[in-house]
Amino acid sequence: MARILIVGGGYIGLYAARHLERRLPTGAHELVMVSPENHMTYQPFLPEVASGLIDPRAVVVPLRSALRRTRLILGEVERIDAESRTARIHLSDGRRREEPFDVAVIGAGSWSRTLPIPGLAEHAVGFKTLPEAIWLRNRVLAQLDTASEAEDVEERRTALGFVFVGAGFAGIEAIGELEDFARAALAAYPPGMASEMRWVVVEATDRILPELDPTLATYAADRLLERGIQIRTDTRLVSIEDGTVRLSDGSSIAAATVVWTAGVRPSPLASASGLPVDDHGRVRVDRTLRVEGIDGLWAAGDVAAVPDPHAPSGYSPPTAQHALRQARTLAENVAALLDGRPPRPFRYRNKGMLCSLGHYRGVADPLGVPIRGFPAWFLHRTYHLVYMPTVGRKVRIALDWTVALLFPRDIAQLGSLEHPRDAFRRSAGS
Amino acid sequence: MARILIVGGGYIGLYAARHLERRLPTGAHELVMVSPENHMTYQPFLPEVASGLIDPRAVVVPLRSALRRTRLILGEVERIDAESRTARIHLSDGRRREEPFDVAVIGAGSWSRTLPIPGLAEHAVGFKTLPEAIWLRNRVLAQLDTASEAEDVEERRTALGFVFVGAGFAGIEAIGELEDFARAALAAYPPGMASEMRWVVVEATDRILPELDPTLATYAADRLLERGIQIRTDTRLVSIEDGTVRLSDGSSIAAATVVWTAGVRPSPLASASGLPVDDHGRVRVDRTLRVEGIDGLWAAGDVAAVPDPHAPSGYSPPTAQHALRQARTLAENVAALLDGRPPRPFRYRNKGMLCSLGHYRGVADPLGVPIRGFPAWFLHRTYHLVYMPTVGRKVRIALDWTVALLFPRDIAQLGSLEHPRDAFRRSAGS
Repeated sequence: MARILIVGGGYIGLYAARHLERRLPTGAHELVMVSPENHMTYQPFLPEVASGLIDPRAVVVPLRSALRRTRLILGEVERIDAESRTARIHLSDGRRREEPFDVAVIGAGSWSRTLPIPGLAEHAVGFKTLPEAIWLRNRVLAQLDTASEAEDVEERRTALGFVFVGAGFAGIEAIGELEDFARAALAAYPPGMASEMRWVVVEATDRILPELDPTLATYAADRLLERGIQIRTDTRLVSIEDGTVRLSDGSSIAAATVVWTAGVRPSPLASASGLPVDDHGRVRVDRTLRVEGIDGLWAAGDVAAVPDPHAPSGYSPPTAQHALRQARTLAENVAALLDGRPPRPFRYRNKGMLCSLGHYRGVADPLGVPIRGFPAWFLHRTYHLVYMPTVGRKVRIALDWTVALLFPRDIAQLGSLEHPRDAFRRSAGS
Repeated sequence: MARILIVGGGYIGLYAARHLERRLPTGAHELVMVSPENHMTYQPFLPEVASGLIDPRAVVVPLRSALRRTRLILGEVERIDAESRTARIHLSDGRRREEPFDVAVIGAGSWSRTLPIPGLAEHAVGFKTLPEAIWLRNRVLAQLDTASEAEDVEERRTALGFVFVGAGFAGIEAIGELEDFARAALAAYPPGMASEMRWVVVEATDRILPELDPTLATYAADRLLERGIQIRTDTRLVSIEDGTVRLSDGSSIAAATVVWTAGVRPSPLASASGLPVDDHGRVRVDRTLRVEGIDGLWAAGDVAAVPDPHAPSGYSPPTAQHALRQARTLAENVAALLDGRPPRPFRYRNKGMLCSLGHYRGVADPLGVPIRGFPAWFLHRTYHLVYMPTVGRKVRIALDWTVALLFPRDIAQLGSLEHPRDAFRRSAGS
């Protein structure tokens, strides 16, 4: 009987565990998952959570509900010792524990990739997690509130300035949805604020959406420009200080809100554990997703450099569609080896990219065919709805969309979620 | 042209402002509301938000959407100076400002009424606000997670102990919904935890639900006892320390979670402003809702002692149904006086009480007729749905109920909402 430790509860962890539960005979092996959260977040819908179109609960999958015979430990794996076959876990309650394993599946994912820019850690926020998406929604509304009562024009313009750094998928989808949301919310605010609102996306390379064909990227840029969103290519963020965002072209923008969407880096777990890593810090695996040179260790997703002869870079790109298929191959190979069968290489042909621009527009290249506008936006929604786990969630999201079509946007600002106990402490006089 | 200042954005503030917008000629007078939040919370549904049956966004009404020509200032009125007709406002951004007015409508509401009990402020939480309801839901799930990985039986029992102090409507509805939720969530956890879970309601008087007829209260107590919920009447909370809750009968309960539902006290605004108050700190008003002896000042809701010859106590009880009607009378009287007409006294006959016990059971006495079980539960839902403002919210809640009937409970734990920026700060290495 083997003890299989699954590190991380994201795409790789959840789907590998589900496939293993199906493929391994009941009771034959022990499945243990370590995840910092008790749920998996379906990231493609984060922009729509941020803009309030979807109930936040509908885009998370509770791991305990999704898994039948995997034990869940809430915490984070800090180090994997390949020699002694143990993992050191930092539990959510603060304690540490060593957990032994026979097989480890590493799906530790990625973190925001930041640069040492003055003010970044203090003033910016990422856009990778559900709390960040909800925070950003409340932040936009709080800034509209601040602007509506501002005492001078400078204060008002700073409140109404929003800068997104990084014009890949994450940045473009986030600014597209949130600008649309803010524009709609303004209807309930004193008139005159719309002309002072400023949305800017800053990109270090020479164009937005480098993942896509230039024609589609140009179409996307034109749609955003039409809506008044500014695009600054060949420009880097220099510093953020007290409401002023300085850029590498010498200009500065008055903006109280900065969102960092300039890419991700792999979880530091592989490096910290002394596993073989590439220049980006990704753990090296062979085509069967086995960690190079170490038996019983497997890895996939953003944390791993998965060889892919079809990809331009030679490696599988860090998208949800690839992670889903890697998780499946990984689980099949783990099961095969336990069963004495040989593992098979990971094979998957990119089915194309989908990018929503908000406001019923999008760009996509399914199977290499470029499409844009409403059809691309609609395909984006439909595709992700189909891949959303569980029927209950699909229904809830479809209903949310229907309600959103029929009724005005919801503009309640729930920033006080961050301080749930303040009201009572104040009542109790402490 | 009069400047009408509305203090508070709860039932009184929102409904008084809406009635004033309808009754006063456009442009004739200026309406300004001061509220700490940009939304009003529909409190009767807080237990169902806590148990995850309803989307939190569906139970809040964004004030800016609900009001057409009332200016909203986010902040709190600290003091009203009746002599100089100014209010000192503590704005949400930390600044203070004096706001002049001709007429003031005081709907500052209530706070949790606490007692100087050791450990209360540090360890307990109230159940009056949306953030508290959401916190409690995440807390219950976090405690189940803790218990599932606890290293000894004492730690597990403490994690699974939940004490509610105060067995009025708020306490009974909260424990009824949350116990039901926790019981359902346990299905996804390792077996054996159900028998160690402990839900206790502590009440200083000799019975639960003092607002209701004793027969109905006994029925309610029996339903809760059947479900394993313990009821300790004639008992007070003595202290909370490190997972141990001590009671006045000398016993103690191992419980990490304590919810304080032992009533409310009026906002301290009236006392702080030197207005005439009664023994409970409620501002004294005459039957037309005018503050006694002060022209141009009006008050209603939990902050005011509203004379009511029909009520047993001689004063209007602090319920939502009374607040709604008081707000209407108050607005009519303000409009009448501005128009040179005489004000009219507040008259409203209590239509009865509705209390949900969770799990499809309730007790109620509509128009004095006692009903119980499923019909009372159903009436509770229907009544509050009818009174929920805006069609969009009604639809959303009805859809949430439908989804909840058809699909399993959602057990994602979103406690990280309290720390939205931690992930990014950590990535940025600060």
